[in-house]
Amino acid sequence: MDTRVKPTVVKLGGSVITVKDEAFTPNLPAINRLAKEIAEAQLDSVILIHGGGSFGHPVARKYQIVEGYKTPGQRIGFSKTRQAMMTLNKLVIDAFVRQSLPVIAVQPSACITTKGGRIHHFDVTAIQHLLRLGFIPVLYGDAVLDFDLGFTILSGDQLTAELAAIFNAEKTVIAVDVDGLFTDDPKVNPNAKLIHQISLEELKGLLDSIDEAKTVDVTKGMRGKITELLPAVKRGIQIDLVNARMAGRLYKALKGEKVTGTKITRG
Amino acid sequence: MDTRVKPTVVKLGGSVITVKDEAFTPNLPAINRLAKEIAEAQLDSVILIHGGGSFGHPVARKYQIVEGYKTPGQRIGFSKTRQAMMTLNKLVIDAFVRQSLPVIAVQPSACITTKGGRIHHFDVTAIQHLLRLGFIPVLYGDAVLDFDLGFTILSGDQLTAELAAIFNAEKTVIAVDVDGLFTDDPKVNPNAKLIHQISLEELKGLLDSIDEAKTVDVTKGMRGKITELLPAVKRGIQIDLVNARMAGRLYKALKGEKVTGTKITRG
Repeated sequence: MDTRVKPTVVKLGGSVITVKDEAFTPNLPAINRLAKEIAEAQLDSVILIHGGGSFGHPVARKYQIVEGYKTPGQRIGFSKTRQAMMTLNKLVIDAFVRQSLPVIAVQPSACITTKGGRIHHFDVTAIQHLLRLGFIPVLYGDAVLDFDLGFTILSGDQLTAELAAIFNAEKTVIAVDVDGLFTDDPKVNPNAKLIHQISLEELKGLLDSIDEAKTVDVTKGMRGKITELLPAVKRGIQIDLVNARMAGRLYKALKGEKVTGTKITRG
Repeated sequence: MDTRVKPTVVKLGGSVITVKDEAFTPNLPAINRLAKEIAEAQLDSVILIHGGGSFGHPVARKYQIVEGYKTPGQRIGFSKTRQAMMTLNKLVIDAFVRQSLPVIAVQPSACITTKGGRIHHFDVTAIQHLLRLGFIPVLYGDAVLDFDLGFTILSGDQLTAELAAIFNAEKTVIAVDVDGLFTDDPKVNPNAKLIHQISLEELKGLLDSIDEAKTVDVTKGMRGKITELLPAVKRGIQIDLVNARMAGRLYKALKGEKVTGTKITRG
């Protein structure tokens, strides 16, 4: 196995692999299809991250895990949040193993500790080793220990940008449930256009404009996601946002083929 | 939470929490009962380890994981072995959460890398942090990455001794499916007696005598287990071997009450 191969980092959004608004409901057809698309892309080196969707989020919210440890009663909520993520992760891994992809779960909370919600300590020994042997490490948004807060939630997006930067990713593909970034909210403005390519500078301008006019939320929750991913873009790593609800788009993005979506580049 | 509290390390043998000889069959009544016994003991600080039993072992054996990475075909076997352990771990954690015990799984292969089958790199940041917050970290025998072999199997017993030593355990209770160590094989020799207490020196003599006369396997697979635990005993950590198939014995051992079993001490 060539250790100089740069990995492709793939993030599967929680909104794609679970059924939104239905607690603990995986979207198994989507998980199976995405496993196939990744298998068929036959990449040399992949790191996979997935979100929590309707598994992690409802439990984490109930026990206010993201805000940190305040009362002993939250402890069982931390356990339950982690278990919810383990349940979803197991479904994902099982689907990928059925495609004969050598995926290995790497529990983020076992090797990452945050400080004030930001990744502070990250032991990547296992991930490095897995990549060297040709495995696909699979991480996920997780309830993690935090040096300041006791514990908190580490988003899959922060983790994705960190992994892309640490392993100098060839590129990073973010599979979401919308076509990409739009010039305006397409549900409100029929003239809103999909942005096919955007530079870091242009993106900052777009994010600022959203900030100034908060009512125009062109990104529909995409803003936080994009902000988390910016550090990777700054390091020169290209990010492809694609709608993974549409069959074949993830595959095309992985192969570098022309695909509907938004490409974010540094230059 | 007093960080000077020494944890009690508890190892639940795979033969206790699964049905031997029936692949992928948990012994749920036993798991639930042991969760209750641990909850009722109300210990200040606990680290839990469990074995693989009929989950991890058959898959690991089929793909010869313990011998290391030799062919790419083994990779999917490494994935499957890990998944088998995740499945069992999830059942254990769920049972303990039902007892309102704040258990948190810590995936050994995410924070431990072995070298020639021995623990070489162990990032204990998460475990330290969990103990400080009053959580019960739960680890298990696992398929792990190995600096020499590529990958291998880390036994729950080696992991138990290592954790007991690192965290200077108050004591270590090993829950097995026999009453303890005997002077001879009780199934063959009706005069075989349970050894209630044994010192390190006496134990070495016993193990040597087994080595010399291999046909007299008084320990019935217990030899490897004991050998793995010796380093902890050498550091002065008391080990209690109890039969966890018998209700109440684990509880008594945890509380330091008089109980049928074998106590191994340094002195």
